[in-house]
Amino acid sequence: MAKQQVVTPSILPGFMELLPADQMVFNQMLETIKKTYETYGFIPLDTPMIEKSEVLLAKSGGETAKQVYRFNKGDNDLALRFDLTVPLARYVSQHFGELTFPFKRYHIGKVFRGEKPQKGRFREFYQCDIDIIGFESLSVVNDAEILSVIYSTFKALGFDDFTIRLNNRKILNGFFESLGIADKAEVLRIIDKMEKIGQAAVLDELKSIGLSDGDAGSVVKFVGIKGSCREIIENLRRLEVSNDMFSEGIDELELVINYIDAFKVPSGNYAVDLTIARGLDYYTGTIYETILNQYPSIGSVCSGGRYDNLAQNYTTKKLPGVGISIGLSRLYYQLREAGVLGESRKATPSQILIIPMKETMSQALELATKVREAGIAAEIYFNEGKIGKKFSYADKLGIPYAVVVGEDEVNTGIYKLKNMATGDQAELDIQRIIEQLKA
Amino acid sequence: MAKQQVVTPSILPGFMELLPADQMVFNQMLETIKKTYETYGFIPLDTPMIEKSEVLLAKSGGETAKQVYRFNKGDNDLALRFDLTVPLARYVSQHFGELTFPFKRYHIGKVFRGEKPQKGRFREFYQCDIDIIGFESLSVVNDAEILSVIYSTFKALGFDDFTIRLNNRKILNGFFESLGIADKAEVLRIIDKMEKIGQAAVLDELKSIGLSDGDAGSVVKFVGIKGSCREIIENLRRLEVSNDMFSEGIDELELVINYIDAFKVPSGNYAVDLTIARGLDYYTGTIYETILNQYPSIGSVCSGGRYDNLAQNYTTKKLPGVGISIGLSRLYYQLREAGVLGESRKATPSQILIIPMKETMSQALELATKVREAGIAAEIYFNEGKIGKKFSYADKLGIPYAVVVGEDEVNTGIYKLKNMATGDQAELDIQRIIEQLKA
Repeated sequence: MAKQQVVTPSILPGFMELLPADQMVFNQMLETIKKTYETYGFIPLDTPMIEKSEVLLAKSGGETAKQVYRFNKGDNDLALRFDLTVPLARYVSQHFGELTFPFKRYHIGKVFRGEKPQKGRFREFYQCDIDIIGFESLSVVNDAEILSVIYSTFKALGFDDFTIRLNNRKILNGFFESLGIADKAEVLRIIDKMEKIGQAAVLDELKSIGLSDGDAGSVVKFVGIKGSCREIIENLRRLEVSNDMFSEGIDELELVINYIDAFKVPSGNYAVDLTIARGLDYYTGTIYETILNQYPSIGSVCSGGRYDNLAQNYTTKKLPGVGISIGLSRLYYQLREAGVLGESRKATPSQILIIPMKETMSQALELATKVREAGIAAEIYFNEGKIGKKFSYADKLGIPYAVVVGEDEVNTGIYKLKNMATGDQAELDIQRIIEQLKA
Repeated sequence: MAKQQVVTPSILPGFMELLPADQMVFNQMLETIKKTYETYGFIPLDTPMIEKSEVLLAKSGGETAKQVYRFNKGDNDLALRFDLTVPLARYVSQHFGELTFPFKRYHIGKVFRGEKPQKGRFREFYQCDIDIIGFESLSVVNDAEILSVIYSTFKALGFDDFTIRLNNRKILNGFFESLGIADKAEVLRIIDKMEKIGQAAVLDELKSIGLSDGDAGSVVKFVGIKGSCREIIENLRRLEVSNDMFSEGIDELELVINYIDAFKVPSGNYAVDLTIARGLDYYTGTIYETILNQYPSIGSVCSGGRYDNLAQNYTTKKLPGVGISIGLSRLYYQLREAGVLGESRKATPSQILIIPMKETMSQALELATKVREAGIAAEIYFNEGKIGKKFSYADKLGIPYAVVVGEDEVNTGIYKLKNMATGDQAELDIQRIIEQLKA
């Protein structure tokens, strides 16, 4: 026989693929996020991964466009989606007449960006997004609810020590306007680096783009205002900046903070931070970032904000919204790297391994069927071989319980349920086994 | 102000996108399939949607290769996966040393095929696959378990009247061998059409490829054997065909049937059908097709079978397996077209709409938080306006309950829980509301 030709099995760099035990942990996180989003009444959405380039790239230019996977098939110019926001804008515009507003949707799915691969950055990754889209107007209470979703999500993921940083772009923009600063975008970009490069460097950069010493100092002083949420609001009011947008921003921020209390979000889990600006012109009101305090180097694990107009590329209707996104693939990867996720050995949903003997196969299948009918994941070991090898299979997969179905067991109806972690065996009938596994 | 330029929002033909109420039904089906697969101990897997063309297309030629979305990004020759089987073969070969065998995995995800779009065929669609992969050998009991999974899945999806058709390729191949028929593939292809074109036409086609009258008659007589599973097996044995593969096939089929009983699959839900052949050379043993008896025109809704060697393109290791696939997008579409899914009006996960008055916003948020903490999906109506409009929002989304949080309610702690379907109102405290919603 000729030697078989094989292609070396491999995947592309920058693509995530997990082994079973890791996949179980990843899926658990995804499921937790999904469940939390649904508890807040967000509607699941699913859009095509491939869209028309002309539609998907209606706005994008520069860096984004370069990263997009774009190709032709037949006469069609196609692109893989690079986020879930553009498809949402397209969806809401396209189906406007068939949707009920405010439209609250969540979308968990893969997006694609042909970035240079680097540690912790992926070319294909999961985003978990929620957005609330209003028609013409949208109450600011929604901004507080979004913060409550962030809180509930990270609590449900098992975190306690995290801070949701809160700001409002109107405060920033109004303040800059009052100083007569024209290039707000540039100033915002510099402020955004406060944490990274420090106050002195920020001052220098501000002056380098033409701010006077006085204005640069005011900006740094302004973003340096610290304290409790209410203290910060008081301090902002005390600046007596005469600018309507500035005042509006403070009012909105105060409203959001008042409602957060009613949502029972503990005051230790959020803070006003005037240094966060979230990019350039997309956001127009409330903005969020979320920091795991024990792992600050991970950066923001959940960000978003309020925008005036979701879909101006697809409709003349005004659709204001507020939303957030969790980059799950990156978050998972970084938590695993940081050792936060622990070492899970469970590499299967199975709760029990049922081990038949040759002559008891039928009874073992019946047992498995009963256990499964009770909603418990059960696996049967069909291979023949030594009993040790069978238990070792349960052990390798991290299946918590195993039971041997021998002739004695079949005759008496009493089975030895082995706890694989402790080695303890309990003698139980089928009903008790089911109760034990459910507990 | 200049007139705003907008791009008409639309998606490509052949791509499925659902409105919220439909998406809820689709997700429910997906969740049911996933849960059933997990109950049988299948491990979740997720592989990249983009792979190296050289790896993904190691074997494929002809029609498949033409349908693949293949493109370049930088120096890379990439392709979107067109099924979940090739990625499984690649995954198992690549991670062989880190997996435990038999390896049972499920994979639910989108695949891509640039087919000519036609009614009910999609270019991007969900497949829901399970496979059990052995190393070197794999017990035939697994083939019975797979049939049990099919049964449990369609039961869980709400079907009663369906038939899982069962056959074994060794019986077919052995029988043809005994007649000295060389071109088995061609004969299989013709037999596969029995249901569509009828016995006379099949006879003609068989003769047209060179079978003698006698052999063509034998073939038709053979695939025409009908009866209960055991009768068919008896009739097959009575043919006294002297061919080892034929006998082996009958033994395997009998074994599978014996075990199906132990899995408690009702005899009305499966049948041996010697006319099913499932394509050409991939399958080597047991094969399955599943028919919804009230909607036979939909064709097989779940198919699969046993194969000798999963991954010969990627490894010299022998990896026999057995698996099935449900094409969920197509199944969903066809069930909806057939009117099987009914008209679901529920377009949100929310179980209750909480309606605050202006002065009770905080109390409404607190109520929502309590309900959500009990795991119940709740939504708050933040927009101001007439009460009728608020109830109409609940109605449009199909939210089953609504409650107004007025000052009286806040003072007494007793709320009127309105059943949106009947209009009935029950006066309940928060605890009772939660109990009612959980029930």
